Amino acid sequence: MSEQSISRRALLAGAAAAAGGALLGGPAADAQQAPVVPADPTKQPGAPVTAVGARSPFVHPERAPVGQITGTALTPLQDLAGTITPADLHFTRIHNGVPAIDPARHTLLIHGMVEHPLELTVAELQRFPSVSRVHFIECSGNGRAAYHTPSPAMTPQQVDGMTSNSEWTGVPLSTLFHEVGLRHDADWFLAEGGDASLLARSIPVSKGMDDAMIAWAQNGEPLRPEQGFPIRLLLPGWEGNTNVKWLRRIKLGRAPFMTRWETAKYTDPLPGGKIRQFSFEMDAKSIITSPAYPERLSGPGWWPVRGLAWSGRGRIARVDVSTDGGRTWENATLLSPLTAKAHVRFEYMWQWNGNNSLLMSRAVDDQGYVQPTMSELLAVRGPGTDYHYNAIRAWAVARDGTVTFEART
Amino acid sequence: MSEQSISRRALLAGAAAAAGGALLGGPAADAQQAPVVPADPTKQPGAPVTAVGARSPFVHPERAPVGQITGTALTPLQDLAGTITPADLHFTRIHNGVPAIDPARHTLLIHGMVEHPLELTVAELQRFPSVSRVHFIECSGNGRAAYHTPSPAMTPQQVDGMTSNSEWTGVPLSTLFHEVGLRHDADWFLAEGGDASLLARSIPVSKGMDDAMIAWAQNGEPLRPEQGFPIRLLLPGWEGNTNVKWLRRIKLGRAPFMTRWETAKYTDPLPGGKIRQFSFEMDAKSIITSPAYPERLSGPGWWPVRGLAWSGRGRIARVDVSTDGGRTWENATLLSPLTAKAHVRFEYMWQWNGNNSLLMSRAVDDQGYVQPTMSELLAVRGPGTDYHYNAIRAWAVARDGTVTFEART
Repeated sequence: MSEQSISRRALLAGAAAAAGGALLGGPAADAQQAPVVPADPTKQPGAPVTAVGARSPFVHPERAPVGQITGTALTPLQDLAGTITPADLHFTRIHNGVPAIDPARHTLLIHGMVEHPLELTVAELQRFPSVSRVHFIECSGNGRAAYHTPSPAMTPQQVDGMTSNSEWTGVPLSTLFHEVGLRHDADWFLAEGGDASLLARSIPVSKGMDDAMIAWAQNGEPLRPEQGFPIRLLLPGWEGNTNVKWLRRIKLGRAPFMTRWETAKYTDPLPGGKIRQFSFEMDAKSIITSPAYPERLSGPGWWPVRGLAWSGRGRIARVDVSTDGGRTWENATLLSPLTAKAHVRFEYMWQWNGNNSLLMSRAVDDQGYVQPTMSELLAVRGPGTDYHYNAIRAWAVARDGTVTFEART
Repeated sequence: MSEQSISRRALLAGAAAAAGGALLGGPAADAQQAPVVPADPTKQPGAPVTAVGARSPFVHPERAPVGQITGTALTPLQDLAGTITPADLHFTRIHNGVPAIDPARHTLLIHGMVEHPLELTVAELQRFPSVSRVHFIECSGNGRAAYHTPSPAMTPQQVDGMTSNSEWTGVPLSTLFHEVGLRHDADWFLAEGGDASLLARSIPVSKGMDDAMIAWAQNGEPLRPEQGFPIRLLLPGWEGNTNVKWLRRIKLGRAPFMTRWETAKYTDPLPGGKIRQFSFEMDAKSIITSPAYPERLSGPGWWPVRGLAWSGRGRIARVDVSTDGGRTWENATLLSPLTAKAHVRFEYMWQWNGNNSLLMSRAVDDQGYVQPTMSELLAVRGPGTDYHYNAIRAWAVARDGTVTFEART
């Protein structure tokens, strides 16, 4: 029995109790049936307030696929609005399960080329000066399934659901670096997670001194286990795996540590048999989340074209929307504050005339970078490209209002 | 069995299954026992990823009190970080329970002094141009319990837990007003909720044309039932009850509608037997959320003094912190973007010398308004004041590190 169905049942039980059951006849609702509600909710008392609120029984966003201990569960982008990703729906990439960690026993060791090695408890970390900032995290593999094995019946979640956006709170890594005293030739650090995969990445010290953070809270509350409870590394704008979860160790050194995670994974094939390594920054990208598969437009008229845009290099400067497959472009409205390295919600009001249409979005960031078409991207990267796939996405709207994913742009 | 204990059990069951139970001996954990975790979480696979994430079994924030169909459940401010309030912990004020509403059947009627009365489904509302904005909602009764019946053993939740902060997404009310065509002498509107209390408030059209919104999403997802699913009125900076939940009707008129909610409740006694009515805006306010009861400082040294500040009239310009009961004040650091009519997180690094101390915070907004002491507030409002209580809050730190609420400021 899922938590979702339990919540739904509890809510309906509460409503049924309040109504004496009179207006709620029929079999008990469950996940397979439409929830039963009063004919007129104003005519009977509602349910009591709860310690921890549940979603409406009519609302059940879910990550997918689930049940794995090695894999990725994607955020249901098509079910969301605004820019914040609810913590329980943040995409998750795990390499050997979600560890169960006692925060009172977890520590962060900072050692290697430092003057004063330090081992800090979580409570000690939380006594340092903190910051709260909104940033996206995107898996470097986001979008590659839709490149390698596209299908018209792919949802935004399946196409690009490995990006999520949160308010993160923690201590700037630069503060801890000052505390331990970096040696002058310490140019890289190793960040190691406390899960059973011991994921470890090499990161330039310059990023640590810039905007890196040891985060203990997400969207106002302590990190969830699937997001690194009790602490994670946050490297704003850099590929997801470098934002090491369940962080337990930082080791300063002269050069990259060349872990298996930077050779067996997370390198980018280029034309001519070359490989791009340490490709940390996530390029500007966008996706229309509505209209999108499996939506169906009920008829011609005004429809909002809504989506998300983001850039690992700075602020989104502009989002263009095309409804004719890229022949012409119009400026979309940016609906939320233009935070650097964060999701921005865009919207373009489209008057659909009922003909076949091809919807596209194109992000432009404040570095002047323009999100490429697939053919532009492949011309640079070659056909072997895999990680960092950020080509323009398209949705085909047919005369009957059905919307399908169109892989080629 | 609460949802909390179910989640905890599910997580531990997952971990136990992954571990073959070998390292997780002992009785099944429940809400009364400390969770059992592996001695070394890196030495065994973790739990599989889930469709909807749960909190760590070591983390269990809860609203209180709960179980009522008329009353308020307060946000656990002391358990939170940053500025976003998780949707399931947003404070809730209900007058006759939380209604169970089918979003496919719910409509919003806009009528009265308009050219073209309109009844819109939720799906139709969502086709209008939208906005996403971060705003707090605060109950006008926030803080009155700590004024009328103070106790040293009150938590931030008990003192001021009727304020929460979210990213809201919806359609500007001004857009709908243009759609229906307001008559030139329509100066007020009635907003009526679809719950069993039929809560209804009169609001000036000027606020509707300014920054009011019909919201359908909170923190990225559809509204929760306790926050007005499927739609609510959002009046940024105005007292909570005017942000009518489960909104079903807006009626335009010439003058206030004088509902029972604007006489039996939500008016402010003033000196001399007078009453202040339609006191919509929430004045600037702040509260230190740590150190606070029931925390105990382990000893002298550097401690972060952290809290929240907000103003219903605009941006927070400054937060001052005193550690000597208001004799001297220092500027706190503002840790998050200074969004108008939104919570801001402040922090002041305090070097505690181990002596008795009295911690206070004082918010100043961009209108020049300065949060008053209790005696300053009562001098203006008289002893009968009740709603809109926004006096400076204080926490007493004793030599043994215990922290208690100090009501008089």
